[in-house]
Amino acid sequence: MEKISIGIIGLGTVGQGVLEIFSKHKKAIIDRVGKEVEIDAVCDTDKKKVPKYLLNAYSANWQEIVENPKIDLVVELIGGWEPARTIILSALSSKKNVVTANKAVLARYWDEVFRSVRKHGNLIYFEAAVGGGIPVVQSLNEGLAANKITKISGILNGTTNFILTKMQKEDIGFSTALDYARKYGFAEANPSFDIKGIDTANKLSILTSIAAECWVKTDEINIEGIDGISRQDINISKNEFNYTIKLIGKSIFDNDKIDITVRPTLISESHPFRNVDGEYNAILLHGDVAEDLMFYGKGAGRGPAASAVVSDIIFLSRHIANKTAGLSPYINYNPNKKINIMKSADKEGCYYLRFSVEDRPGVLASIANILAKNRVSIAAVYQNVLPGQSGKGASVVIITHRANEGKLFKSLEVIDRQKYVKGKSAVYPIEN
Amino acid sequence: MEKISIGIIGLGTVGQGVLEIFSKHKKAIIDRVGKEVEIDAVCDTDKKKVPKYLLNAYSANWQEIVENPKIDLVVELIGGWEPARTIILSALSSKKNVVTANKAVLARYWDEVFRSVRKHGNLIYFEAAVGGGIPVVQSLNEGLAANKITKISGILNGTTNFILTKMQKEDIGFSTALDYARKYGFAEANPSFDIKGIDTANKLSILTSIAAECWVKTDEINIEGIDGISRQDINISKNEFNYTIKLIGKSIFDNDKIDITVRPTLISESHPFRNVDGEYNAILLHGDVAEDLMFYGKGAGRGPAASAVVSDIIFLSRHIANKTAGLSPYINYNPNKKINIMKSADKEGCYYLRFSVEDRPGVLASIANILAKNRVSIAAVYQNVLPGQSGKGASVVIITHRANEGKLFKSLEVIDRQKYVKGKSAVYPIEN
Repeated sequence: MEKISIGIIGLGTVGQGVLEIFSKHKKAIIDRVGKEVEIDAVCDTDKKKVPKYLLNAYSANWQEIVENPKIDLVVELIGGWEPARTIILSALSSKKNVVTANKAVLARYWDEVFRSVRKHGNLIYFEAAVGGGIPVVQSLNEGLAANKITKISGILNGTTNFILTKMQKEDIGFSTALDYARKYGFAEANPSFDIKGIDTANKLSILTSIAAECWVKTDEINIEGIDGISRQDINISKNEFNYTIKLIGKSIFDNDKIDITVRPTLISESHPFRNVDGEYNAILLHGDVAEDLMFYGKGAGRGPAASAVVSDIIFLSRHIANKTAGLSPYINYNPNKKINIMKSADKEGCYYLRFSVEDRPGVLASIANILAKNRVSIAAVYQNVLPGQSGKGASVVIITHRANEGKLFKSLEVIDRQKYVKGKSAVYPIEN
Repeated sequence: MEKISIGIIGLGTVGQGVLEIFSKHKKAIIDRVGKEVEIDAVCDTDKKKVPKYLLNAYSANWQEIVENPKIDLVVELIGGWEPARTIILSALSSKKNVVTANKAVLARYWDEVFRSVRKHGNLIYFEAAVGGGIPVVQSLNEGLAANKITKISGILNGTTNFILTKMQKEDIGFSTALDYARKYGFAEANPSFDIKGIDTANKLSILTSIAAECWVKTDEINIEGIDGISRQDINISKNEFNYTIKLIGKSIFDNDKIDITVRPTLISESHPFRNVDGEYNAILLHGDVAEDLMFYGKGAGRGPAASAVVSDIIFLSRHIANKTAGLSPYINYNPNKKINIMKSADKEGCYYLRFSVEDRPGVLASIANILAKNRVSIAAVYQNVLPGQSGKGASVVIITHRANEGKLFKSLEVIDRQKYVKGKSAVYPIEN
């Protein structure tokens, strides 16, 4: 083998970043691989995206790259489910190794992809799929290999973190903040995958599946997005209780069960996520021996994602050069292992509750009674209707002590049926 | 090969942690290696440290392990320079692969160790040498392989961070805080390596040598420890300017030059190191494409260090099992490459200065004049002698705008020679 031959499919933002790093750091890349590495084929539906020096390498059809026997390594950077899934699976069955940044395909087709990897004895690397430039997949999978992972929690989506940071720092509503995110290039034309929490859930599915060594599907995750967060909750939680709101994906491992959720969560002042703002991502891993570890960096964007893709290319190319690709699996996956998702009745936590109620005597007593009956203990209360303002209704905010989530939800159902309640109650978990 | 055979030399805190993880996670370790892995030899000067189930594997002399042809992998955990250096070099020349946590040997004998690795075609892994359980060596070396590293900065020593945190949170002096650190097991009997900044410098030497691909020696680093930090500077910097003091090891790469220092440094409120307290470590890496990344976790102690050692053992064992150990170098090292250390005259920064002076007219004017002549521009001043308190002397504190460090040091020399000055001026760099 004289050189490692690479085919890149998809020349969008990340693909362009990859080409740029290859031009800029070609010598260093070859040094690190220990052999010549060359981009010998590129494919994109838009030929205009191909730089001049690569026009000779252009294919209009990805099949030409995947079927080209000279290509050693296929880099899939088009995103979305199809044809990305078919490209990845075709490349694997053509005995090619694969680098991808595609969290959607991995989260939805984990079983299919890793069965194929095992069957064909090759490798797929996907560092850029989670946390942009942060080497969290490698750290979880290799650097913490000695550990039983007991907790994964993360700010995994730059778009939502940008929006929430804007809402909080500038006291603006969700849709204004979303407009900002679009303006600064931090939100896609259709941002619903991000703001509904699906992108975070896909990334959490990937990290959790690595740690659990079995497939934990996005569908199994209890997901809540950020589009329902009100300025009122942001302001009260910040001004009265010194919390900030972040969209947190979280898996807590408890033997054969996982508590896995994606939810807007209140973050206390001393929490390591407190200052993770804007487009930054952070991931907290807890291993039984290494204890708490946090990784922080830019979660998206051309440079950071391309950094992860090229680092993957380097180490996979080195495996190809040494003929060691696939000798050991990168990801441990047991198709027969099944892990159960924990139910609310088995969970405990502290919560922020807000009730929109009529401002009349007995309301607080009634809420407190219903909570007490369900053994939900109150840590703090905030209600602020000044004399003369009554009649407009009131917001009652309660911070709970540690409580059983099932019982908490049961009491909220009861409270929301009371006549004095004017709207659905808001509930956010708290991370201290 | 039926199994990977491991010899552990040194059964102190980290060694005991390694044995514990092996007992607890034996099955998972074997799963990850893909082959049986066994601790077949242990050595310690104190036989009492050997658990019963390993008494058959005990050697009183490390030579027996290093020379035993059945041992595939030698784990050196005794620390210090000798016999650790000889053990590592002997193991390498006996064609064994090595895992070590020994930052002192690596920093002082980098050239000898990596020449030997190259000559004998094997591998040495040393994740536990820097940052305890944080996989920063792997991340710098592999996860960021696509980057040109432009900056490394870190809180790399748990003992000094514990002491500084205590001094600041409890308003106590250095020696009282050191007593606490000893009491809680965060300081060794002779803590001078830690408090003088040598341990931080060794770790910085290792990280910098990886990034630079050449040996940057501890001796070349401008080192200042924490034993000279006064409560006065802690209090004024915190109360008047909202800074905290951390011992920071920092390398800034500028083509063929590095600005490399270990210094107590003032950290602003929004800096990611701000809440890295107690025994925690944090490392900030800046790559030209991945941009800022931070890694945070427990920097020392049985569990975290053993986590890193066992993860190294797993991946090195996998290489041994696949007969791929040494096919590619883990660390890129060019013995002929030389990088220059930047001088003060080439550096710029913001600084905190404190002058102990007589409390009489004209002093501030004189200081300000000398700074101005050297083009050091003043951003903020603090002097607080109440009427009736004069005669006891005063402290004048100045925060500078960005200034040339050479010129700043020159002006401090001049100021310290003035008659009104009662003691050496204090100077700390500021990280914003």
